[in-house]
Amino acid sequence: MGIIVQKFGGTSVGSVERIQNVANRVVQEVQNGHQVVVVVSAMGKSTDHLIKLASELSLKPSKREMDMLLTTGEQTTIALLSIALQEIGQPAISMTGWQAGIQTESVHSKARITHIDPTKLHVELGQGNVVIVAGFQGMDINHEITTLGRGGSDTTAVALAAALKADRCDIYTDVDGVYTSDPRYIKGARKLAGISYDEMLELANLGAGVLHPRAVEFAKNYSITLTVRSSIEQTEGTLIEEVSNLEQNLVVRGVAFEEDIARVTILGLENEVTGLANIFSTLASNHVNVDIIIQSRSEVALTNLSFSIKGGELEEALQVLSDNQDKLGFKRIEYELGLAKVSIVGSGMVSNPGVAAQMFEALSTNDIAIKMVSTSEIKVSTVVDQRDMLKAAQIVHESFSLEELQPVAALAAKA
Amino acid sequence: MGIIVQKFGGTSVGSVERIQNVANRVVQEVQNGHQVVVVVSAMGKSTDHLIKLASELSLKPSKREMDMLLTTGEQTTIALLSIALQEIGQPAISMTGWQAGIQTESVHSKARITHIDPTKLHVELGQGNVVIVAGFQGMDINHEITTLGRGGSDTTAVALAAALKADRCDIYTDVDGVYTSDPRYIKGARKLAGISYDEMLELANLGAGVLHPRAVEFAKNYSITLTVRSSIEQTEGTLIEEVSNLEQNLVVRGVAFEEDIARVTILGLENEVTGLANIFSTLASNHVNVDIIIQSRSEVALTNLSFSIKGGELEEALQVLSDNQDKLGFKRIEYELGLAKVSIVGSGMVSNPGVAAQMFEALSTNDIAIKMVSTSEIKVSTVVDQRDMLKAAQIVHESFSLEELQPVAALAAKA
Repeated sequence: MGIIVQKFGGTSVGSVERIQNVANRVVQEVQNGHQVVVVVSAMGKSTDHLIKLASELSLKPSKREMDMLLTTGEQTTIALLSIALQEIGQPAISMTGWQAGIQTESVHSKARITHIDPTKLHVELGQGNVVIVAGFQGMDINHEITTLGRGGSDTTAVALAAALKADRCDIYTDVDGVYTSDPRYIKGARKLAGISYDEMLELANLGAGVLHPRAVEFAKNYSITLTVRSSIEQTEGTLIEEVSNLEQNLVVRGVAFEEDIARVTILGLENEVTGLANIFSTLASNHVNVDIIIQSRSEVALTNLSFSIKGGELEEALQVLSDNQDKLGFKRIEYELGLAKVSIVGSGMVSNPGVAAQMFEALSTNDIAIKMVSTSEIKVSTVVDQRDMLKAAQIVHESFSLEELQPVAALAAKA
Repeated sequence: MGIIVQKFGGTSVGSVERIQNVANRVVQEVQNGHQVVVVVSAMGKSTDHLIKLASELSLKPSKREMDMLLTTGEQTTIALLSIALQEIGQPAISMTGWQAGIQTESVHSKARITHIDPTKLHVELGQGNVVIVAGFQGMDINHEITTLGRGGSDTTAVALAAALKADRCDIYTDVDGVYTSDPRYIKGARKLAGISYDEMLELANLGAGVLHPRAVEFAKNYSITLTVRSSIEQTEGTLIEEVSNLEQNLVVRGVAFEEDIARVTILGLENEVTGLANIFSTLASNHVNVDIIIQSRSEVALTNLSFSIKGGELEEALQVLSDNQDKLGFKRIEYELGLAKVSIVGSGMVSNPGVAAQMFEALSTNDIAIKMVSTSEIKVSTVVDQRDMLKAAQIVHESFSLEELQPVAALAAKA
């Protein structure tokens, strides 16, 4: 009988018919006895249309004015969804981000939410209204309209759920849940009934794309129970919570992959202690995001250093490094393009030392060369040739029998 | 060196190219040394598109949600114009109605402005910015987004000019000024250099359509010097002020006409005193707008009463009257459709008693029957057959030699 926050993305509200479909979904939850807050994105391609108009006027439009421009997209959707709900007899009221009390940093295009005042939301919910809030937007202390950046509507929904102490936050999307791997490419990929915040965070960061990492982080920090489910089909989605009660014995939860990775190797680093720190602070201050880092060292030779980055950032990384070669103190740079990352994620692996070895063995048995490796408590990432990416993901998916429900005991017996 | 408010309507900002054109216009005034506030409407057909989306969801969408929906149109334009100005090196900042301090009544779809707080506008102007304000919109005391109804952007511009004590308010539109009559239909119609508020008000009410009557009324109340000018051509427009200094001796300023008028005649009104009041209060409470009223009375017979209304309201008027026949106390109703109104407007006619007579004579000489007449201090309206409308307007236009600059002295000599 508590509050539920529902979030519908751009595809789910992409037409008048789909908005009507969403309205029916919302009414179902009201009929289940819940107070409902709905967060929506801009309709389908409308954001692209606005960006195109701006780009015809300027190659580099100001971020403030882009925020002013793009926030009209969500405002359009909230009004239309409210009209659709009222038409089927459901009292509803739409609110922009600032009306809903969403306050953000004074930053444009990627502001973070600093505070939510839910007073007005509670008043409207108490009067029997469904409240429809524009996702992706807020207002800073100077009454400037701001946006939350990519995945912003997910973050709006989770933040509102936290502020309202909602029972649940349901993210409706065009897929019906979180999968063990991308079902478009990996045979046997299946929907997970449950997953932990940390696992979801790794999968989100690894490009699974269902939920934005910031939203997952927010949900973890405020212990919001999230579900990811289909806005089209009436199926159970995936539950995301602190410790997944479902399939908790599964040692590996999913296989993620990401293409277009580059490897940069810095040879002959003179000062191992300061050089390492200087290189990564120089790259960071030039907005190059480094992922995996490997350092090799021998007693007799100078230190060599490799790291991986997104392919699109290679040019800038090379420029920054060569501009600072003297200061950083190294001999030369090598690089390799056309790589990809294949990762396994699962909170069960922390207590199963054989997991990484099993992944490497599966790959090497199938003649796939591993170029870099990185491990954390719940993740093993490998960098491979891009042409091997899907094959590698499929092999790993099968190696851990992710197409079946597979408890730790069985896996251990098999290993 | 003072502040100028410029207003550009939907056609003037209907495409990326036109927005660039507007940006150039704005920069011209900045280069003339002015601080400039620009008020814009939604782009061309964008409002129609939003209304269509809403109508697909509901035949009667709530006014509150329509305000939420439609205000996105102006918000889109302000952002795009700001981007266009910044692109050509002109510092600019966009503001929604509420950001610009425009407070309105708590009414949706046709709120009136109650207060403007220009603090933020002055701050931004003082920092060298052109400030672009979304027309047609404001916020009520409950932080609800409201709209000002038809002609709302004109009203926004005039109200801002008043609040900012601007030197001038320039209304840019797709015509290049106020004409003696509609140049599309009347041969010899020419642009007026100047016109008084009251004359403009009569012309606006009579369907000239260039400026909304509410905006003119506001300008009159706050003594705002208005100009109406072309957003496309670089020509002088028409100056609207308290007493027009230009051509002030012109006795008739313009000829307006409006088609689709109906006449309703109520025969045998029993109680002349209460009946008259009751009829018009009954019609008003049913939102039927009555225009010209004529009452005829003889000592021996019951009173008869005629009035004119828009053709589209005839059916409702007849229904309301026959529903209340017993209460109102009359014998029967007659009506006539297919009529039109032709009016002359000019503040000079108050001191020229022969003006109405000259109009009637010109019409009767040309065999045009006058069915109703109404006069005010600055206006004479006649109702004629709709098929005679343009001919009548042309004859009257020529009769007062409006194709030439015509001072009172010359007119008097001719009469």
